[in-house]
Amino acid sequence: MEIKNMTRPKELTVQEIILHLTEGITLPENTVDQLITGSPDQFVTGIVVAFMPTQQVIEQAIQGGANLIIAHESPFYNHHSATDWLVNNSVYTDKRTLIDQAGIALFRCHDIIHRFEPDGITDGLIQELGWTTYLSGRTAESDIVTFPEGMTVQEIAQHLKQRLGIDYVRIAGNSEIVCRRAAVLVGFRGNGPVTIPLLQNEQVDLIIAGEGFEWETPEYVRDAVQQGKSKALIMVGHAESEAPGMKLLADRLEESFPETKITFVKEQPVFKVF
Amino acid sequence: MEIKNMTRPKELTVQEIILHLTEGITLPENTVDQLITGSPDQFVTGIVVAFMPTQQVIEQAIQGGANLIIAHESPFYNHHSATDWLVNNSVYTDKRTLIDQAGIALFRCHDIIHRFEPDGITDGLIQELGWTTYLSGRTAESDIVTFPEGMTVQEIAQHLKQRLGIDYVRIAGNSEIVCRRAAVLVGFRGNGPVTIPLLQNEQVDLIIAGEGFEWETPEYVRDAVQQGKSKALIMVGHAESEAPGMKLLADRLEESFPETKITFVKEQPVFKVF
Repeated sequence: MEIKNMTRPKELTVQEIILHLTEGITLPENTVDQLITGSPDQFVTGIVVAFMPTQQVIEQAIQGGANLIIAHESPFYNHHSATDWLVNNSVYTDKRTLIDQAGIALFRCHDIIHRFEPDGITDGLIQELGWTTYLSGRTAESDIVTFPEGMTVQEIAQHLKQRLGIDYVRIAGNSEIVCRRAAVLVGFRGNGPVTIPLLQNEQVDLIIAGEGFEWETPEYVRDAVQQGKSKALIMVGHAESEAPGMKLLADRLEESFPETKITFVKEQPVFKVF
Repeated sequence: MEIKNMTRPKELTVQEIILHLTEGITLPENTVDQLITGSPDQFVTGIVVAFMPTQQVIEQAIQGGANLIIAHESPFYNHHSATDWLVNNSVYTDKRTLIDQAGIALFRCHDIIHRFEPDGITDGLIQELGWTTYLSGRTAESDIVTFPEGMTVQEIAQHLKQRLGIDYVRIAGNSEIVCRRAAVLVGFRGNGPVTIPLLQNEQVDLIIAGEGFEWETPEYVRDAVQQGKSKALIMVGHAESEAPGMKLLADRLEESFPETKITFVKEQPVFKVF
């Protein structure tokens, strides 16, 4: 009889996973990261990692026997996860009931992963695109990539669609220019105050972003092209730009907790082009 | 000799046009509406009305001999038209030099037209869509339309594309449902705090909006459909939803100032889908 074979796998609590994620991270006072549902003391039966904790992601977690969901965004359609305005809303109450009855602990991992060094979400996207060797610089909110041979914006768009498994991207500016330097910005970092200084001061030809106000970066790029300057913008979608970072997080958690079943769930794009 | 035939057309100043536009309107203290360039005293040689005062719109105004541009959005890539962050930016300085050298007066008409009764931008969109007879209600930020026979979301999307002259719309939720009540929201009114109460309390099947955060309304609609509820969302684009209101403004100004050349300039959509 070998004692070591009888050792049960260590029972992990939600709190242990949270402590692992937040180790060495200083969160801002107004952080949105919190345990939104469930208890820190509950034992983890399995982990689902996702960009957005949709109704379908929660259903898949329950079907797979997982009781901890780690998600980048809020389940309740607002950045700060406020629920007071939703108490009489049937979509909210149906979702909440499902979560509570199944005993799902839902942990928001937004500010934490953006504070990894390097930013865990941007890092995930760069790795998914196979561009780690092209990385030539970093600013607080972007990675700068340099293409030694140059690529047209259309070639880059094609690469993005193929690697991210998406049906379309939106392009502003001149899609035929040969791009040598691009700035990659995930999520809602596609706004003018972030992108315009990059285009002006970092000799960037192309912005690749998740989402941003339509009257800022796209209009700047349109004007630049009308003035004869070679600039372009590719918007890939918020979720499309950030999901690879959560997939990378799932891979990392698997290495740290090899005895726990950890599944990354990728949602369909929320929009279809018609 | 008939004296009346020798009367010169009355020479209008920029200030007279501004007074006409703002008559009876109470603007908020922090209004973004202002004369951004030019002088209130200059005589108007012609008026260009546009949603966005792009480089190309300014060039067209100059070519057509107009020296007053009335635009809904800012020329400088931010809602409050701040320029301090752009002083060393060549796209800004090139655009600014063109405006100043041509003596263009640029008046922002954003808060004003949204305070017309009814909202001049929403009204323009409803008229452009041919839906005035379908109008069945109004909230502070939306028009509610009722389709007596019902229309599928795809049929409505097709109608939007045709009437607005656009190549694509983005749809979330179930595009096959038959819609009886839709809420129409222009510009950046597509966010959850505005749309979600309409979907829940106003028996609205469909939201038609310009632009909004991707993690709010689209994700709510996705969850609703996953729960078996019949909901959908069509995002038409910010400019696409608001340009018809500026076109209607141009028509109204032509009636009030029949001796002045007034031209509505429609820009191409800023994004192309690839």
